[in-house]
Amino acid sequence: MSVTAAKGFRAAGVTAGLKPSGTKDVAIVVNDGPDHAAAAVFTSNRVEAAPVTWSRQVVTDGRVDAVILNSGGANAITGAQGFADTHRTAEHVAEALGVSAGDVVVCSTGLIGELLPMPTLLAGVDEAVKLASAEGGSAAAEAIMTTDTVSKEATSAGGGWVVGGMAKGAGMLAPALATMLVVLTTDAVVDAEEAGDALRAATALTFDRIDSDGCQSTNDTVLLMASGASGVRPNHEEFGAAVTAVCADLARQLIGDAEGAAHDIAIEVRGAADVDDALEVGRAIARNNLFKCAIFGKDPNWGRILAAVGTTSAQFEPQRLAVSINGIQVCRDGGVGEDRSLVDLAPREVQIVVDLNAGEETATIWTNDLTHDYVHENSAYST
Amino acid sequence: MSVTAAKGFRAAGVTAGLKPSGTKDVAIVVNDGPDHAAAAVFTSNRVEAAPVTWSRQVVTDGRVDAVILNSGGANAITGAQGFADTHRTAEHVAEALGVSAGDVVVCSTGLIGELLPMPTLLAGVDEAVKLASAEGGSAAAEAIMTTDTVSKEATSAGGGWVVGGMAKGAGMLAPALATMLVVLTTDAVVDAEEAGDALRAATALTFDRIDSDGCQSTNDTVLLMASGASGVRPNHEEFGAAVTAVCADLARQLIGDAEGAAHDIAIEVRGAADVDDALEVGRAIARNNLFKCAIFGKDPNWGRILAAVGTTSAQFEPQRLAVSINGIQVCRDGGVGEDRSLVDLAPREVQIVVDLNAGEETATIWTNDLTHDYVHENSAYST
Repeated sequence: MSVTAAKGFRAAGVTAGLKPSGTKDVAIVVNDGPDHAAAAVFTSNRVEAAPVTWSRQVVTDGRVDAVILNSGGANAITGAQGFADTHRTAEHVAEALGVSAGDVVVCSTGLIGELLPMPTLLAGVDEAVKLASAEGGSAAAEAIMTTDTVSKEATSAGGGWVVGGMAKGAGMLAPALATMLVVLTTDAVVDAEEAGDALRAATALTFDRIDSDGCQSTNDTVLLMASGASGVRPNHEEFGAAVTAVCADLARQLIGDAEGAAHDIAIEVRGAADVDDALEVGRAIARNNLFKCAIFGKDPNWGRILAAVGTTSAQFEPQRLAVSINGIQVCRDGGVGEDRSLVDLAPREVQIVVDLNAGEETATIWTNDLTHDYVHENSAYST
Repeated sequence: MSVTAAKGFRAAGVTAGLKPSGTKDVAIVVNDGPDHAAAAVFTSNRVEAAPVTWSRQVVTDGRVDAVILNSGGANAITGAQGFADTHRTAEHVAEALGVSAGDVVVCSTGLIGELLPMPTLLAGVDEAVKLASAEGGSAAAEAIMTTDTVSKEATSAGGGWVVGGMAKGAGMLAPALATMLVVLTTDAVVDAEEAGDALRAATALTFDRIDSDGCQSTNDTVLLMASGASGVRPNHEEFGAAVTAVCADLARQLIGDAEGAAHDIAIEVRGAADVDDALEVGRAIARNNLFKCAIFGKDPNWGRILAAVGTTSAQFEPQRLAVSINGIQVCRDGGVGEDRSLVDLAPREVQIVVDLNAGEETATIWTNDLTHDYVHENSAYST
């Protein structure tokens, strides 16, 4: 269901032939209204792909009629030709749907630095438009997968309305987004401003707090489209909660399917002077390769956690730090705590708790371990 | 030779039994004068090991009579007991040599979060003091190795004086130092201030520009001791050049022996508005796991380089970026350049050139690729 759980939306996922694997690679989500309110957030990477540059413009007026997405090529760092190809794709969708190209968002994912085979892509667009239906959500979710091993969908129901979403992303997951494409739909009656408020609040608490490998993509896009087809205007809090719930669900699925990961790691930073400190510390740990390798090896080498904490500017005194791994307090008062051999790192889920003892704030960053499979997958991506 | 190339120094490396491997694990370098000028730089990690806390104090008065070093245990995050152990080690050396404990630098490297077996260590200290000789430099260099596969020594001769050095370090190499212990000696006549000026200038250009895995250690120490035994007072520039030459040589050896590395990668950033921009861009690339995996896989996936550049605050326009890999300009004007398949990544040395086209400044960061062996070595370090 996902993006077609909400009334007023049609979707499809088809095989155009962009991926050597021969799996689905072009997806479309069409908003049939009656409203066409939309908001989006994009990568903060200054080297952004052509579809991101295009789509930023599209959403500025708060109206989006459709989004076309392709895997099998990122169309990033492809110069003027790449931008022309994105423009042409949007025009093609617009003609097929009878809407304005300026209301068509374009998303691409795949290898950077290669032009897309346009005839192949446009043929896929035609087929996707033709097949788009209220049952097409799951096919669309499949078509945006790259190294994902499973498609990601989520929904959250309000009183008479629903928020649905799909996501792709398996590496390059980092704050300020990731190689992550997310499309959210709702049939609630909300205007573009309210959609934007809810979306920004939700991403700050969800996608911005997953950090698989610290690498930030050129193509990240999270789009929320509202059709108003339920006729119900939700209250602000309920709507925000539903959008956040769907984003949290999808974010958790992204971490659970990160490239080559053997452990999903929640790094909870407690006792921070403020949330920014907690996030900085959590991210420093999440990006520490030595820590990530140790978790892969089921080695509770907690010194690496403190070494990572020590690189931050967060408020703390080293002699007041405490660290628990899966419930065993291996470090207390900045020194040796319980015997590290008591820690069981066999389960896939790992809970790291770092207490800065410097305040009352808490935040959790989700990450993965660094494994042979991660190296393998990412050492042979373009070849 | 290394640290005993300069007149006035004795050194030794012995097996105390701190390492299960049974290889040498305690080293000493004694400055017999007539001068005892010294300067040091330490890790900027806020979680610093007990020996770092101790040694910072020792060097404040510009006099050091000896340095004792052990592998097989970092004595980091070991609380008050760990500091007491460092103090006791210095006292032990001081008694054996007939000097003040306040003039004895202590360095430790190995696993974090474990107390050192003091009787074992102190027996090793006794033996090292006993064996210290003008021929002991190479044995000392061996005794500080952890996961290093080879010992690292270097010398640079001036007119009638010499600078020699030894280093260890194989992972956790990052700016602002690394799990890196470096001892430099000279028989030139220099005071502590001049030694400090030369040392800080040299480390900024050498050790601060290698970044193996972005991880910063709790124990890094670079110590320079001057005996004045040559009786020659060098001019400022010549002395600085010699110290920098020895540091550059050792830094290059560290990268060449980084844990599990299959490629040594020089990332040269040209056309930067200032050197800080060049360094920020170089480090962002050096720390990008996707890029590092690609090089391991001999995959010239240059999009990952630009994605890393895009995360920085350096001055540049995306459409003016250019990238070459081993001489092939795969990206020009922020778009596709020559065919990536022309790039040969078989050699161990890889030259990345990124041109920001935003100014005249240049800097080079050295790093390594991310390999199966890195994951393997670091997934089973403490177990």
